[in-house]
Amino acid sequence: MPPPSTPSLPAGFRASAVSCGIAGERLDLGLVALDEPASAAAVYTTNRLLGAHVHLCREHLERSGGRVRALVVNAGNANCCTGEEGLADARAVAAAVAERLGTAPEEVLFLSTGVIGARLPTGRILEALPELTGALSDAGLDDFSRAILTTDTRPKLAQAEAGAARVVGVAKGSGMIHPDMATMLGFLLTDADLGRAPHALLSGVSKRSFERVTVDGDTSPNDTVVLLGSGQREASSKELEAALTSVSVELARAIAADGEGATRLVTVRVEGAPDEAAAVRVGRVIATSPLTKTAVNGLDPNWGRILAAAGRSGVEFDPDRARVWIGPGTVYSEGRPHPEEENASHRHMVDESEVLLGIDLAAGDARADVWTCDLSSDYVRINADYRT
Amino acid sequence: MPPPSTPSLPAGFRASAVSCGIAGERLDLGLVALDEPASAAAVYTTNRLLGAHVHLCREHLERSGGRVRALVVNAGNANCCTGEEGLADARAVAAAVAERLGTAPEEVLFLSTGVIGARLPTGRILEALPELTGALSDAGLDDFSRAILTTDTRPKLAQAEAGAARVVGVAKGSGMIHPDMATMLGFLLTDADLGRAPHALLSGVSKRSFERVTVDGDTSPNDTVVLLGSGQREASSKELEAALTSVSVELARAIAADGEGATRLVTVRVEGAPDEAAAVRVGRVIATSPLTKTAVNGLDPNWGRILAAAGRSGVEFDPDRARVWIGPGTVYSEGRPHPEEENASHRHMVDESEVLLGIDLAAGDARADVWTCDLSSDYVRINADYRT
Repeated sequence: MPPPSTPSLPAGFRASAVSCGIAGERLDLGLVALDEPASAAAVYTTNRLLGAHVHLCREHLERSGGRVRALVVNAGNANCCTGEEGLADARAVAAAVAERLGTAPEEVLFLSTGVIGARLPTGRILEALPELTGALSDAGLDDFSRAILTTDTRPKLAQAEAGAARVVGVAKGSGMIHPDMATMLGFLLTDADLGRAPHALLSGVSKRSFERVTVDGDTSPNDTVVLLGSGQREASSKELEAALTSVSVELARAIAADGEGATRLVTVRVEGAPDEAAAVRVGRVIATSPLTKTAVNGLDPNWGRILAAAGRSGVEFDPDRARVWIGPGTVYSEGRPHPEEENASHRHMVDESEVLLGIDLAAGDARADVWTCDLSSDYVRINADYRT
Repeated sequence: MPPPSTPSLPAGFRASAVSCGIAGERLDLGLVALDEPASAAAVYTTNRLLGAHVHLCREHLERSGGRVRALVVNAGNANCCTGEEGLADARAVAAAVAERLGTAPEEVLFLSTGVIGARLPTGRILEALPELTGALSDAGLDDFSRAILTTDTRPKLAQAEAGAARVVGVAKGSGMIHPDMATMLGFLLTDADLGRAPHALLSGVSKRSFERVTVDGDTSPNDTVVLLGSGQREASSKELEAALTSVSVELARAIAADGEGATRLVTVRVEGAPDEAAAVRVGRVIATSPLTKTAVNGLDPNWGRILAAAGRSGVEFDPDRARVWIGPGTVYSEGRPHPEEENASHRHMVDESEVLLGIDLAAGDARADVWTCDLSSDYVRINADYRT
């Protein structure tokens, strides 16, 4: 997919980034700031192991009543498995940013991504703050989108209109690297008003987008999605939810497409499920099956692996009534393979950068898409040889 | 591990194998037979997609009241996704074997492993039966153990004593190949009496052995373990259960060690779990984590990936109290990594063919071992390029 052109920030937001030396020479410290507090919500990893920033963000959003003036992100160090000092380090950075911006510490969110188990070099971050806040501008989103990357090969941005308002999303995530688990971070910025239940809004949007993407099934201790609304433009709640969902799905797909070693974006489409949760469950099992993912890597329309992955998902269905398709070819139905369809499926896998794996369980009316990528020798190499 | 020398069959059993041309020139049709019926039990895959032999074995064991005179296995064709014809084919083979041995069809179990979606060439099997039954001998186990293999690189055999009786086990399984899912098959043969509840006995043994091995997390429609007892030797139920468990664990470990592309057998040891089921669950998540498995492939003592995999298992524990060790090195404890221990862990991974990954959750007294192998570029190559 071609790199998207960088959208402009929604009304009320400015952004910037600098290099502070945590991740080499490149941009590794980003800032999004508002003159008036935005309303905010966040959702976090379900992993029991939590980076310091998850504790900090929860604490600050609770104390500020969900009001945020600034969002700071560093790449190159996850500030995870760093004990009480790690949380103190995160608090120190947030406090210093708050002081420079003339706001309260609890109105600053500070997030980290990168290597775990290493102490955060707060000195470098604090030294870089004057330059960082000084660089804030309406045109700073491009720099910010680059400063939050780790193993990603490209920035991930998306935008959509919601009535008179706009939603702009920026994300990072590409799989996991040693010794950390490369975090999925997502930021949704809008000039719409978030209404009375921003957390429920974000949670619903996230379930249909970020929670349906998997590169390798491994969650990170730092995964976080933050939603900020400046409330400067008009949008109906329906328009806003649709725009947030559209932007989030685009970012989720971009994360899957940029998975470590990926050669194909894979959309797993489950239809005919008893309910949406069951559809997602079947989709996730297929999307994390090493056999399905290596088959895509080999451009092999392997219906048997898709059907068998669905078969171990725990969702009840009758394999004799199920149907499996890969792109245009219906490669299995009525209890039998259709080898004559495999050539069309194979061509689809060869020609398209996005491969569609479909299964109809014939067990209900619910459906869901889940996104992943293929599993390549490069994934193994990236993750096996990281330290050598 | 060195190839084990072939054990002799327990009293009452004979075995043989021939090449019938399903899997090229090699041995691909095996037989185990008894003059007097053995008592029998079987456990099957939990996949919703089932090979024809699962239906057949269930039906025959029910009709015969768990009495078996013969066990026939073919490799090269899984007889799965073959509809009603597939089940009729399986019944025809079982009936022909029964006729040759002068017994009832329901006293014959017939199992298949290999490619799915292709009709079983029953003609070749039926033609080979005179040679197969004619070759039955006390010394036929070695041939039988080779005839059931698919992508395995070596036969898998184990034995143990139980009082005056013996238990001999033979298994196959190594991951999965296109377009089938290479089955795990296990056969436990003993001259002990199985007692009144052979199914409960087998089920308990299987839970602690075969159900704790994973190569890629993908189950097969054909996975089956059969237990046969000729009852010609004395053993206490305790002795028998211990011997069955020992043999089954040895076979499970052999399957993991021979996983597709494997360079290391990996034992995941979970301690301090709230209960045994939780220990197994954590072990399975670690053992199927692509990040953990690629780290072992890269000989990287990556405690972060082990801890994060445990963290997403759904089992409650406090990461600050958990402890992670790799071989002799305690690489994480008290909320902190111990980089100074990593060299000892790395040496262990370099020097040993079996790598130990340990985690103490500090959340109870239960423990469990789970076995797997590393994830290599060869695994991807084997499974991506199977048809090209």
